[in-house]
Amino acid sequence: MARFKRHLLVCENERAEGHPRGSCARKGGAELTAKFKEELRNRGMATQFRANKSGCLDACEFGPVVVVYPDAIWYGGVTADDVVEIIESHVIGGKPVRRLMIQDKRFLQEFD
Amino acid sequence: MARFKRHLLVCENERAEGHPRGSCARKGGAELTAKFKEELRNRGMATQFRANKSGCLDACEFGPVVVVYPDAIWYGGVTADDVVEIIESHVIGGKPVRRLMIQDKRFLQEFD
Repeated sequence: MARFKRHLLVCENERAEGHPRGSCARKGGAELTAKFKEELRNRGMATQFRANKSGCLDACEFGPVVVVYPDAIWYGGVTADDVVEIIESHVIGGKPVRRLMIQDKRFLQEFD
Repeated sequence: MARFKRHLLVCENERAEGHPRGSCARKGGAELTAKFKEELRNRGMATQFRANKSGCLDACEFGPVVVVYPDAIWYGGVTADDVVEIIESHVIGGKPVRRLMIQDKRFLQEFD
């Protein structure tokens, strides 16, 4: 078993207002990190799974962005309302939430 | 192929001066992130591999701490002098740098 069974990174990078790429911090990134942490704590699972803020994940146009390791599953446009589903289906249950996965081939795993 | 072949998280969490656990920010965390980014850029590899700062990785006593995904290899006590070796041996070469791995069973992968 690894240190964390799953480890979530939530982008909290902030760009200047009006920057063409936008930034996750201006789309609710910090609120997401707080909610992931809180929901994991509430379930008594903060020792098995961890959520952390991160610097720019270079997926600004899809923000707010969350990546889950070791699976390397990338989620975009995540809202606070999606947090419980991501935790229950994917983080705990192992089944990624397809509708939230970034639909760009660079972000979709190819298992070869 | 995943979005990033390897993704490094460098803890930059800062605790108050004198906190018993210490903190990665006070042990050079930010300098490490900058050096990882610079060395990847210099090799023209910043699109395949990524280094990001992160919030607290809960390994403060081993700081500064770096975790590499998807391998889930945890390094502790990393200095700027170790960055090139981690990049060349592990990030690019796939061979973890054993002498820098945190020697605590919670952080050592068990492959079963």
